Amino acid sequence: MFNIETYKDRRQRLKERMKDGILLFLGNNESPMNYPANVYPFRQDSTFLYFWGLDQPALAAVIDLDQDKEIIFGDDFSVDDIVWMGPQPKLHDLCAQVGVQTVKSSADLANFIFRALQKGRPIHFLPPYRHDNMIKLQEILGIRADYLKNYVSVPFIKAVVELRSVKSEEEIIEIEKALDITYQIHLEAMKLIRPGLKEYEISGVLKGKAMSLGGSLSFPMIFSVHGEILHNPHQLNLMEKGQLVVLDCGGEAPSHYAGDITRTLPVSGKFSEEQKAVYQAVLSAQTAAIEMIQPGIRFRDVHLEAAKVLTLGLKELGLMKGNIDDAVQAGAHALFFPHGLGHMMGLDVHDMEDLGEEYVGYDEHTKRSSQFGLANLRLARELKSGFVVTVEPGIYFIPQLIDLWQQEQKFKDFINYDKLESYRHFGGIRIEDDVLVTENGCRILGKLIPKRIEGIEAIMQK
Amino acid sequence: MFNIETYKDRRQRLKERMKDGILLFLGNNESPMNYPANVYPFRQDSTFLYFWGLDQPALAAVIDLDQDKEIIFGDDFSVDDIVWMGPQPKLHDLCAQVGVQTVKSSADLANFIFRALQKGRPIHFLPPYRHDNMIKLQEILGIRADYLKNYVSVPFIKAVVELRSVKSEEEIIEIEKALDITYQIHLEAMKLIRPGLKEYEISGVLKGKAMSLGGSLSFPMIFSVHGEILHNPHQLNLMEKGQLVVLDCGGEAPSHYAGDITRTLPVSGKFSEEQKAVYQAVLSAQTAAIEMIQPGIRFRDVHLEAAKVLTLGLKELGLMKGNIDDAVQAGAHALFFPHGLGHMMGLDVHDMEDLGEEYVGYDEHTKRSSQFGLANLRLARELKSGFVVTVEPGIYFIPQLIDLWQQEQKFKDFINYDKLESYRHFGGIRIEDDVLVTENGCRILGKLIPKRIEGIEAIMQK
Repeated sequence: MFNIETYKDRRQRLKERMKDGILLFLGNNESPMNYPANVYPFRQDSTFLYFWGLDQPALAAVIDLDQDKEIIFGDDFSVDDIVWMGPQPKLHDLCAQVGVQTVKSSADLANFIFRALQKGRPIHFLPPYRHDNMIKLQEILGIRADYLKNYVSVPFIKAVVELRSVKSEEEIIEIEKALDITYQIHLEAMKLIRPGLKEYEISGVLKGKAMSLGGSLSFPMIFSVHGEILHNPHQLNLMEKGQLVVLDCGGEAPSHYAGDITRTLPVSGKFSEEQKAVYQAVLSAQTAAIEMIQPGIRFRDVHLEAAKVLTLGLKELGLMKGNIDDAVQAGAHALFFPHGLGHMMGLDVHDMEDLGEEYVGYDEHTKRSSQFGLANLRLARELKSGFVVTVEPGIYFIPQLIDLWQQEQKFKDFINYDKLESYRHFGGIRIEDDVLVTENGCRILGKLIPKRIEGIEAIMQK
Repeated sequence: MFNIETYKDRRQRLKERMKDGILLFLGNNESPMNYPANVYPFRQDSTFLYFWGLDQPALAAVIDLDQDKEIIFGDDFSVDDIVWMGPQPKLHDLCAQVGVQTVKSSADLANFIFRALQKGRPIHFLPPYRHDNMIKLQEILGIRADYLKNYVSVPFIKAVVELRSVKSEEEIIEIEKALDITYQIHLEAMKLIRPGLKEYEISGVLKGKAMSLGGSLSFPMIFSVHGEILHNPHQLNLMEKGQLVVLDCGGEAPSHYAGDITRTLPVSGKFSEEQKAVYQAVLSAQTAAIEMIQPGIRFRDVHLEAAKVLTLGLKELGLMKGNIDDAVQAGAHALFFPHGLGHMMGLDVHDMEDLGEEYVGYDEHTKRSSQFGLANLRLARELKSGFVVTVEPGIYFIPQLIDLWQQEQKFKDFINYDKLESYRHFGGIRIEDDVLVTENGCRILGKLIPKRIEGIEAIMQK
């Protein structure tokens, strides 16, 4: 939890951006696995954390803009609860720590909202993504759960995005704590990976590492010898000599700020010559992209530059051909690089994704493309000082996609399908770092996790 | 996944227990953490797994009793999905593996139910505990999410409980796989625990252990020097010499069958004399309870017998006094043992808790008590061969509860409050095993995890 002034200031700046009505914030609740009392690890809503700091379930809050009041709704524990849960601080004391004096019972929220609705006052709420909160909104607003998305407050979304997009110094410190955990996971991976083990035998240890450091993971870890499967949740494969492992993971600090780093590691500890060549193309693209990052540049342009460097590398390998600018403009490179270069990062690893990528990653000057690959770009807009973004180009050989494109003879002037055949089982390579946009340029956050070929091999062969 | 005949047979026996109408099964969906795409590890609904075996999100199934039809509703992946998720088996092939020939699109479910409702046919459904499924039921049945609980099918619940309560040999094998994981976690704990570390430094490693063995945890691990807090989710304490750690955890096998074992371990590797005396009382109660377990005995009687052995131990320590039977009948022991002796275990660690404890743990001959402590008993009914139950007595010194009872002079003829003062900071002790009710008695499941004082000390001091 930050200092009381942080939260008061954040709410003050939010109020300045909104006109009138009630701003309604729903905290998250416990989330059941296989029956109501058996719950997943609690994760508070990030916007709730940002403005109210309280990291416990079953809270709501309002800012009454017209009467300039702030209220938190929640309930204290009973003695019966204390037998099961241990002694608990009083909610009133917790609220005081984040500068809120008025605390009401959970049961009062519906009544509070009802009275405001009766007076015709606007109730601003953000897009709900937890279904329990959809049902709660249905109950207190009288809007059917599946219609709620049509009634969210765009001014509220825009104001929250504006504030949360620019990270303060104290937020950067928290992100770097998450990156300390991430660093330790990656270094541990470099020590543990070897042929003959199943993926989960290592990834299990790495997930435990995050928790044994007092943190958690900001998203489900990707740890796979099939790096070409972009969001591969399975870790059942045997790791064999000659394969590469893509490890894409992020620690989450106790404050819930995220990290998100990818490295691609040779199972045997040494890259083959063929792997080195593809790896170097990805690393060059990542380096070139990071060098471009500064306030005022559009992230889509950084993405396209990275795509060009990748295309150059693929041409040198004989896998692409023709004019690089034309190939990238047509989208031919997306066979190998079908995802976006990166995304915002903060309290969420895809920061504010619940509020809508069109508000976070795009703006009135930058609209989403419909081209395959480019359409997946989560962040395209102009960068500002204080943004934290990931930079994560990759090259993948996806057999199903190659077959599909080859059948259609898609971009055959840019893609050398014959040569591609021998790369069919190559897998994929991605390299990712987290970057803070500074006033003059950018800074890679966190302690350096080796990404040069020699650096990785040196650690893995120890 | 079991053999096809297992699932066909389970559904056949279910059909024999139901009269008419439609049995509706909703599988679980992905569950979001902090935005829709950032999800917790997927956990299928246990009843869905039991009858349909398919361990993937976004499925539903029906048994049409009148027309003797079985249908699974779900959707295949698109090529776009395959880029992100890798090649996926066809749903039709998966369904064939569990004996289901008819597969329809998810979108057809609402229509199917609507047509059945129009014909006035009963739609049987189980109590929903995931809010997304509540919203789905609201949409397809037209019943408001918060009223659904009034419309669940009691005959359906009872039939499912009857079948799932009795475990087959192949289910016992799966439970013992979960207990293999649990064994390894406990043995690792005995090797790692030492003074000077924070709880999470060890518990994090233990959670990782479950995953590195290819499994997961059947519930959030309890690992605490404050064992007197029964469901302590926090692991921030420093472990100090002289303290005890309660480790209550269960592995979950890849098939999702659970284990659930508790051991109480001395941080220093050696119990003090005072700790030994309390520990021995709990161990005697646990042993006595297990010896009683056989078909035909009521679990409430086993609970009460355990309570008597605990009370005897507490009398020998000078903490209780008076006639043991009277003390237990009055409920005086519940100051030290405020929870129930155990619960059913199977695909859920509290098996079928979503269906209602009144159906799982109680029956027409055994109604729930309202007495403090006894009211928390999850399982009271007569045991049958094939049930798997936990046996987990404990003695706890809960300062808030002691103060409350002492102020009220509650049970002062049975409790020696003066003597209790010196135990205020003792913490708690619990010992738990998982037991299969056999035809003649019972069998403790899984490889033996040391629970005698000498056995624990021998491992911890290695």
